[in-house]
Amino acid sequence: MKHRGVLFVVSGFSGVGKGTLVKELVRRYDNYALSVSMTTRTPRKNEVDGVSYFFVSREEFERTIRQDGLIEYASYLENYYGTPRAWVEQQMDEGRDVILEIEVQGALKVKEKFPEAVLLFVLPPSARELKRRLESRGTESAETVLKRLKRAREEAEFIPDYDYQVVNDKLEDCLKQIHGIVCAAHGRPALNQEFDNQLKGELEALVKGEN
Amino acid sequence: MKHRGVLFVVSGFSGVGKGTLVKELVRRYDNYALSVSMTTRTPRKNEVDGVSYFFVSREEFERTIRQDGLIEYASYLENYYGTPRAWVEQQMDEGRDVILEIEVQGALKVKEKFPEAVLLFVLPPSARELKRRLESRGTESAETVLKRLKRAREEAEFIPDYDYQVVNDKLEDCLKQIHGIVCAAHGRPALNQEFDNQLKGELEALVKGEN
Repeated sequence: MKHRGVLFVVSGFSGVGKGTLVKELVRRYDNYALSVSMTTRTPRKNEVDGVSYFFVSREEFERTIRQDGLIEYASYLENYYGTPRAWVEQQMDEGRDVILEIEVQGALKVKEKFPEAVLLFVLPPSARELKRRLESRGTESAETVLKRLKRAREEAEFIPDYDYQVVNDKLEDCLKQIHGIVCAAHGRPALNQEFDNQLKGELEALVKGEN
Repeated sequence: MKHRGVLFVVSGFSGVGKGTLVKELVRRYDNYALSVSMTTRTPRKNEVDGVSYFFVSREEFERTIRQDGLIEYASYLENYYGTPRAWVEQQMDEGRDVILEIEVQGALKVKEKFPEAVLLFVLPPSARELKRRLESRGTESAETVLKRLKRAREEAEFIPDYDYQVVNDKLEDCLKQIHGIVCAAHGRPALNQEFDNQLKGELEALVKGEN
């Protein structure tokens, strides 16, 4: 059954490992396309336009906003970040499942515009384990770790607004579970309208004795 | 992650093979419990009370309705048929996924009362194949087959009200797909409130420095 791709939104607390999960999904399965954000910030060394980000001027970004060309956007440290609509729509039309890795507020905006989007919240097995993962990065002060835990506590209030939650305990199990959720979503009627319309037409014809 | 069971509602056109699918799901996997309906009709030979149906008097059925003890009910050929709530709730509390095989109107009533229920519509690969399956039963007149196809055409209008659709082409593939949909549903936040509340409590404690 050919179907439209899923718009798959992944959020999770800082330190939960969602970056690794997303990277592995794209590497292992061929149905995913990772959305590339548009930004006005300056490229860092090694960042490639169209791969890391679409790097654009403030004028171009604001023109894209006015043309409703972004699924969601936000500004952070005086720079804009957003998700270009055209590329995402094209991938979905071609049957690819588009992954957006975005934070809670952005995710809820996406759900408003695309009610058929599938929202996933990645959780740690426990709060202590989240703290351990944040500390094990070795790059963050105790103060920063505490700030991230506070943020996590706030974000946890939005879990019920998501369609699914998974616990990232063992990577392999978690990847399989996430992939299962996306595969299940292929059966959503909104993605199978072409098949359903054909079936209705065929039934109509049989009932009218045209066949 | 321990979670509440899923209320899983299966509908589909007459002749599509949903009875076989449901039977095989229960036989192969140990997470399912098949809901037993309550009815006022007289037991047939070989029908066992509590297995085929819960056989009750009209008075008892109407008392159960008044006590809101049924998830849904309908009357057909002067008999009542309904789904007892207590048994279903108990199974779900124990983590079992309860399958209700019911027709479209009943399914939509269930969704109203249990928004977290997962509704699945089983479809044939094509209208011709549905007709072939109906005819191959060998027990139904051309007139009955036509009546069922007409009914199918009407029911097809309600596919978009379902959460998922599957095509019953090859039994094995279809079973795997359905089981995948139920497993994915285990990640719905509504079924994992206990875990989420514990995580929030732990985060709260860490942030307040209680640990």
